[in-house]
Amino acid sequence: MSGGLLSEGQIQREMAEVVEWVRRENPMAGSITNTVTINLVANAQLAVGGAAAMVYFPDEGEALAELGGATYINVGTLTPIYGETLPRTARRLSELKRPWVLDPVAVGLGEMRSALLKEFKSYNPSIIRGNASEVIALASLWEVAAVGQRSKVRGVETTEEVEEAQEAAVALARQTGGAVAVSGPVDLITDGRWIVRTSGGSPLFEKITGAGCSLGGVMALYAIEASPLVASLAASAIYNIAGARAERECDGPGSFQVRFLDHLYRITAQEVADYPFELHEVER
Amino acid sequence: MSGGLLSEGQIQREMAEVVEWVRRENPMAGSITNTVTINLVANAQLAVGGAAAMVYFPDEGEALAELGGATYINVGTLTPIYGETLPRTARRLSELKRPWVLDPVAVGLGEMRSALLKEFKSYNPSIIRGNASEVIALASLWEVAAVGQRSKVRGVETTEEVEEAQEAAVALARQTGGAVAVSGPVDLITDGRWIVRTSGGSPLFEKITGAGCSLGGVMALYAIEASPLVASLAASAIYNIAGARAERECDGPGSFQVRFLDHLYRITAQEVADYPFELHEVER
Amino acid sequence: MSGGLLSEGQIQREMAEVVEWVRRENPMAGSITNTVTINLVANAQLAVGGAAAMVYFPDEGEALAELGGATYINVGTLTPIYGETLPRTARRLSELKRPWVLDPVAVGLGEMRSALLKEFKSYNPSIIRGNASEVIALASLWEVAAVGQRSKVRGVETTEEVEEAQEAAVALARQTGGAVAVSGPVDLITDGRWIVRTSGGSPLFEKITGAGCSLGGVMALYAIEASPLVASLAASAIYNIAGARAERECDGPGSFQVRFLDHLYRITAQEVADYPFELHEVER
Repeated sequence: MSGGLLSEGQIQREMAEVVEWVRRENPMAGSITNTVTINLVANAQLAVGGAAAMVYFPDEGEALAELGGATYINVGTLTPIYGETLPRTARRLSELKRPWVLDPVAVGLGEMRSALLKEFKSYNPSIIRGNASEVIALASLWEVAAVGQRSKVRGVETTEEVEEAQEAAVALARQTGGAVAVSGPVDLITDGRWIVRTSGGSPLFEKITGAGCSLGGVMALYAIEASPLVASLAASAIYNIAGARAERECDGPGSFQVRFLDHLYRITAQEVADYPFELHEVER
Repeated sequence: MSGGLLSEGQIQREMAEVVEWVRRENPMAGSITNTVTINLVANAQLAVGGAAAMVYFPDEGEALAELGGATYINVGTLTPIYGETLPRTARRLSELKRPWVLDPVAVGLGEMRSALLKEFKSYNPSIIRGNASEVIALASLWEVAAVGQRSKVRGVETTEEVEEAQEAAVALARQTGGAVAVSGPVDLITDGRWIVRTSGGSPLFEKITGAGCSLGGVMALYAIEASPLVASLAASAIYNIAGARAERECDGPGSFQVRFLDHLYRITAQEVADYPFELHEVER
Repeated sequence: MSGGLLSEGQIQREMAEVVEWVRRENPMAGSITNTVTINLVANAQLAVGGAAAMVYFPDEGEALAELGGATYINVGTLTPIYGETLPRTARRLSELKRPWVLDPVAVGLGEMRSALLKEFKSYNPSIIRGNASEVIALASLWEVAAVGQRSKVRGVETTEEVEEAQEAAVALARQTGGAVAVSGPVDLITDGRWIVRTSGGSPLFEKITGAGCSLGGVMALYAIEASPLVASLAASAIYNIAGARAERECDGPGSFQVRFLDHLYRITAQEVADYPFELHEVER
């Protein structure tokens, strides 16, 4: 993504290709993730055609880094073993130049979380996915953007608008050389040079737990073959389509989640590629 | 609740208010809970309008005690870190006089569980929620009631009738100064002076895992604004309504859980307030 | 199973009896299992009429070994405490001659997993349940069969055909004196002398996480009263029936899982007994 121009048509072609490739090849993306939403992460990864494997031990994290095409790391519910597992896994991923997605859930809460998230700055996550608050707080922790206010930690929900996170997202992406995906009513995705916005989905995403986490797990699968920017956008698009369809057919958050997984499984590569987005070059 | 008379009309008003308040304010109740039902706890909390956050580390438990309006503590699947996290979190909650719900799952099983549950006696949980067996066993462990038989530990299901737990429940409530909610076909809730009974729900609650745990998580949300007695009753009522409606529309435990979450999300504050219950003063 | 002849009619009678017995007696089978699918294991056990309890601590594992009629052990997401809990629990089960099911998920991944799985050879699991790759890899780890190729670890999915695992399965069963159940499009179950094959289910089993794990949990319940061979077959049959019915009524993996649990709950003992299978004596 660094050199040359990027066209909407090229992005669309790459989105279609990666969605199709995951369905055809059934690639595996390993995860080290939280216990609240671990089941939905796995089920979403399977629904889009991939394979899932979750571990906690350091040597197993390193092994998955090698065996999997990409890895999803979510710091949601840390336990002591994460203190060894996450740095070793991230280091190995960085050495192998293997794509990985970082989900900085509840950044700012607790000592180990802050220490781990700081350390990840050295390991260049290919995609950082979070809500606006988390992206702003991570940029502040990494000292890559002059972020005025300290973001408020409050469970895992968005307490800031996506647009307020744009500066932080661009700064983080320039730091990592990858992409940053800010999830919300509008999804803002940037690789530091280009910004893509797409929207849709459903307000019910905030009434189930794990919409964001599982989106990160799907991004990891798509990042095996696509660029971080295209992987983030393809995953956001399939989530927005499936969310909107599920909302129309549901009676509340229980049936929403069920229908959402059904649609993740059924949406075609072409539908993902055709989903509207806006592409802009970052003003300098 | 300690002084003066308590009327059914007052309870109903307070139930309507708290159900409405949670939907409007989206307050957060943190949890330290078991891995079996952690997802359902979070989803039930979101369905009634609140926000969820789950942690395992001591400093994070303390931080959630401060950030959240209330905390839900469930000892279902202990790991070593709980040995430090639960006492520190409960102590902080007690110092802050912040409401918290204790779910003494499988009390009697294992050394650490007994040690932790004994220690909680010092930290006055605002609500103790369990099935009849667990409430009887906890009263015995705390030596607050002369309970004849040792309750039989057997997974997490009710093996004793709710009414047999009344004496233990009253004694526990007098010890804590909060409320005790005994869940079962009839829900018995007491603050040591008043006893409320409500019933309904569905036998299918015993055919899914986590109905009781997630009820405790919802009680925590309601306890942020309502008294322990009213919070316990409002949560029990919304569960009984949603359970009965889900049962009528389901074909088994899979669709029951889905429809149950849908109804939790849709039931109005007025429906909760209108749900029948009986109020008695404890005979002395 | 060791002496005498085994007839299809006898197997069918025992299958009907155990399915009915679990629904009537509501027995408990404890589990030490992974965090990804722990909720589905419990829900499947409840749906077929049993009770569930999950723990992580060594003394709690030993207590469940005594309290439960059988135990399900799955090495999916190991944490440090498993290093003490699993051997102590398996040893106690072996001493008590209590049935237990081993699910050697992702055998070959990581040091602790290999060490634990090797140690289990001493404790004779009543049923080993896995996909073809896992059964072949475990036989190789236990050095009970001359297995040519090292099985490829790749998450938890089947990467080898069931029939390729027959030799390994027979060798493992002769080692343990119990049964081995190889899950796949065709389920192959053997006690070392007899081989039973049954098939059906749905390709959607591979599009949700935990079909195999929860099958192991149901096998544990059935193994409380039935022989390992009959328990494995009865569980495989009820899964194949429920899976096929769920597939016909679903729109994707979300509704598949919901309908699957509904059918697990509704299938009768007679339907399980009538489900077709083939019985052969192993050629010597």
